[in-house]
Amino acid sequence: MNDSRNQALRYANQHQARFLQELQEFCAIPSISTDPAHKADMQKAAEWVAEKLRRAGVNNVQIFPTPGHPVVYGDVLNAGSQAPTVLVYGHYDVQPAEPLDKWSTDPFRPEIKGDQLFARGATDMKAQDLAAINAVEAILSTGNLPVNVKFLIEGEEEIGSPHLDPFIRQHKDLLACDIFLNPDTGMLAQDVPTITYALRGLAYFELHIQGPKSDLHSGVFGGVVHNPAQVLCELIAGMHDRDGRVTLPGFYDSVIEMDEAERQELARLPLNEAEFQRLSGAPQIWSGEKGYTAIERYGGRPTLEINGIYSGFTGEGAKTVLPAHAMAKISMRLVPDQDPDEVHRQLLAYLEQNAPPTVRWEVNVLTGGKASLSDRFSPGVQAMSKALETVWEKRTMFKREGGSVPVVTQMQQILGVDAVNTGFSLPGDNMHGPDEKTHLPTWYKGTQALIHFFFNLS
Amino acid sequence: MNDSRNQALRYANQHQARFLQELQEFCAIPSISTDPAHKADMQKAAEWVAEKLRRAGVNNVQIFPTPGHPVVYGDVLNAGSQAPTVLVYGHYDVQPAEPLDKWSTDPFRPEIKGDQLFARGATDMKAQDLAAINAVEAILSTGNLPVNVKFLIEGEEEIGSPHLDPFIRQHKDLLACDIFLNPDTGMLAQDVPTITYALRGLAYFELHIQGPKSDLHSGVFGGVVHNPAQVLCELIAGMHDRDGRVTLPGFYDSVIEMDEAERQELARLPLNEAEFQRLSGAPQIWSGEKGYTAIERYGGRPTLEINGIYSGFTGEGAKTVLPAHAMAKISMRLVPDQDPDEVHRQLLAYLEQNAPPTVRWEVNVLTGGKASLSDRFSPGVQAMSKALETVWEKRTMFKREGGSVPVVTQMQQILGVDAVNTGFSLPGDNMHGPDEKTHLPTWYKGTQALIHFFFNLS
Repeated sequence: MNDSRNQALRYANQHQARFLQELQEFCAIPSISTDPAHKADMQKAAEWVAEKLRRAGVNNVQIFPTPGHPVVYGDVLNAGSQAPTVLVYGHYDVQPAEPLDKWSTDPFRPEIKGDQLFARGATDMKAQDLAAINAVEAILSTGNLPVNVKFLIEGEEEIGSPHLDPFIRQHKDLLACDIFLNPDTGMLAQDVPTITYALRGLAYFELHIQGPKSDLHSGVFGGVVHNPAQVLCELIAGMHDRDGRVTLPGFYDSVIEMDEAERQELARLPLNEAEFQRLSGAPQIWSGEKGYTAIERYGGRPTLEINGIYSGFTGEGAKTVLPAHAMAKISMRLVPDQDPDEVHRQLLAYLEQNAPPTVRWEVNVLTGGKASLSDRFSPGVQAMSKALETVWEKRTMFKREGGSVPVVTQMQQILGVDAVNTGFSLPGDNMHGPDEKTHLPTWYKGTQALIHFFFNLS
Repeated sequence: MNDSRNQALRYANQHQARFLQELQEFCAIPSISTDPAHKADMQKAAEWVAEKLRRAGVNNVQIFPTPGHPVVYGDVLNAGSQAPTVLVYGHYDVQPAEPLDKWSTDPFRPEIKGDQLFARGATDMKAQDLAAINAVEAILSTGNLPVNVKFLIEGEEEIGSPHLDPFIRQHKDLLACDIFLNPDTGMLAQDVPTITYALRGLAYFELHIQGPKSDLHSGVFGGVVHNPAQVLCELIAGMHDRDGRVTLPGFYDSVIEMDEAERQELARLPLNEAEFQRLSGAPQIWSGEKGYTAIERYGGRPTLEINGIYSGFTGEGAKTVLPAHAMAKISMRLVPDQDPDEVHRQLLAYLEQNAPPTVRWEVNVLTGGKASLSDRFSPGVQAMSKALETVWEKRTMFKREGGSVPVVTQMQQILGVDAVNTGFSLPGDNMHGPDEKTHLPTWYKGTQALIHFFFNLS
């Protein structure tokens, strides 16, 4: 058995150059799920993944169409019914690359600089997808998989996985598993192997404020017609109080407080204010919600963010216009037991209480998903913890994560299975921003760790 | 003399069709002064005006280059040194046409619908330029001008006339005059001939807020890094207090209060809240600065407007980004004796007091000009009042204007001459907005009134 493990580890090492070339190929496909102009690229990316799975030795590879972007499935079920079944999750879609002028490379022409590969989607999460597929390829090419493995690689994670929930419900038997592996969470630092036991949920809205019927001359109507951009700013400003708390009525009612033991454990993580400041380049870290440290606010507390805002004239020069309309994209990161629908109602209640009668307003729901918590002592989490410690020769850190992976909640709710959340992206990888990159030595280590994980489970 | 007047009035009536054709020709030139891409169109518009002046019989027509867009000059000085000299002001530049999708016509393909001509610049102020030139053409084609007339038609009004002040200073003798006619202010309503005796000044800024070094993942950094869009909204929200007053320190210190007599006269104007609401299409009129009626706030009080705002992701869909940067275009309408430089210092002081240390900020000055007040009992204003009453057969209304015409202040300061502010644009003409239009019967009447004005002065 140890021999099989070692052969697989050697195979992965010997094929690094080809794995890297394939990663570049995969990242060159601009699979931007939110942009209808890239529909063909989404199909192309799905087919690329399916072909990669087949070449890796995975059976039963299928591309399932959905009302949105397709889901790619494949499995290797030769380990027998006594062996555990691992469902490996991934997504082949990526965030938009805008603002393009802030990139030092072309986001869809992957470029290697030193130990880094620069490309949109490099770290989130095409490298993670391939780490898992490559680990399975290495084992299958040198022997047999000690566990049953299924792959579920979707194309709508970056838009909130709107069609994944019905897909999972419709394919409960196909997806049945004992362990759900989600390599989309990442590491705290290059030398800190990390497992995430809590993920935040998300509720994402678009708020529109409509004032006059069309843009007006600000000299004629200023001071008489309420400026929708001003109204929007006032409404947004009111969404936090002086203590950095979100003011939507009832926002904290369902929040489960962290206990003292957990807060002490989180305090041991290397993600302190100085580290957040270094990673973000912000002049100073925000105090945020009063009474909580940065690392607690990051994963353990809900937040409200303005993701975008737009009104009036934003071109070059001075246009003296009073805008007719103003828009903001507003999203909340949720913790257990907050519910996105409840947060929607809270936002509406806030606007009903605070929006002035001088404007009309409208809220569109863009996406939403609940938060999740995993048992840190399950066999899957323990197998992964050991695998990471073998490769990194460091103690695995357990953390909460600020981001959202709706599929983790869905798997808990529909298949009744807890997630093993890990991954090999680093905090400085510029996920979702310009110059996204992945650290290649970490990626190679990740593939090794996943090989160990599969063997540890047997 | 009455015979000459009547011949000129008849000439203007007989040539209406050609005048309209010329107005369409003029409006078809996209002379957008703020947009460097339209530099050639600016030159073309200046040449078009020069040619029109020559054809009207105006002498000494010259196009003066400036570091920005050229100034067109011409004069007819045959009335003798005893006769008064009128300097007629105009501008051939227009506002940008964006948002283009809100127009029902192509903004630079003038289209007649019923009594209206639709085009960017139709009412602001190409129709006004031509009303004055056509009046002079009518008089010169049928006899002699009873006064000396000079034309000064600039190309930078919509960007705050940055090169007009030095131009006037350099050409003080050429521009010397007794009366300054500015037909850029307009009417209160179709049947209300109007003279404006006060214009507001303008101070226009761009405020930039810079947070982290690049766009971040809102799940990872939300609640820890201060969101620049949120900071911008909070700063803007704080610029008005609960009584609708602007909170910049010292903002009202130099404001000259209206006296009771003036407030009573303003109360007689037909521009009440219901009218503002009808014109704007806003759901309800804003109460604005407490203690002042809509018509008082409109021209007699300073205001602060958000002309544009931008941050983060504003495309289709849900991008969970924490933006690195946020920007707002903010302008203030000023009344005597506020000073744009002073307001700039007040804005900086406000930001120094209120901007948090979690972001960097920067203010760019885009344009500025002081407010102005004219003597309502000067010969020029009286001649215009009588001319309007002759054509409209209604009492002329005297009003303050919310907009800004920096040249009026400059003429007062440099040439020591008061302005006669009038014009034939209507409040519903969508000046600066989509579907700008001019009401043709009012425009024809305007030409007639200007003919009377020149004869009334002799």
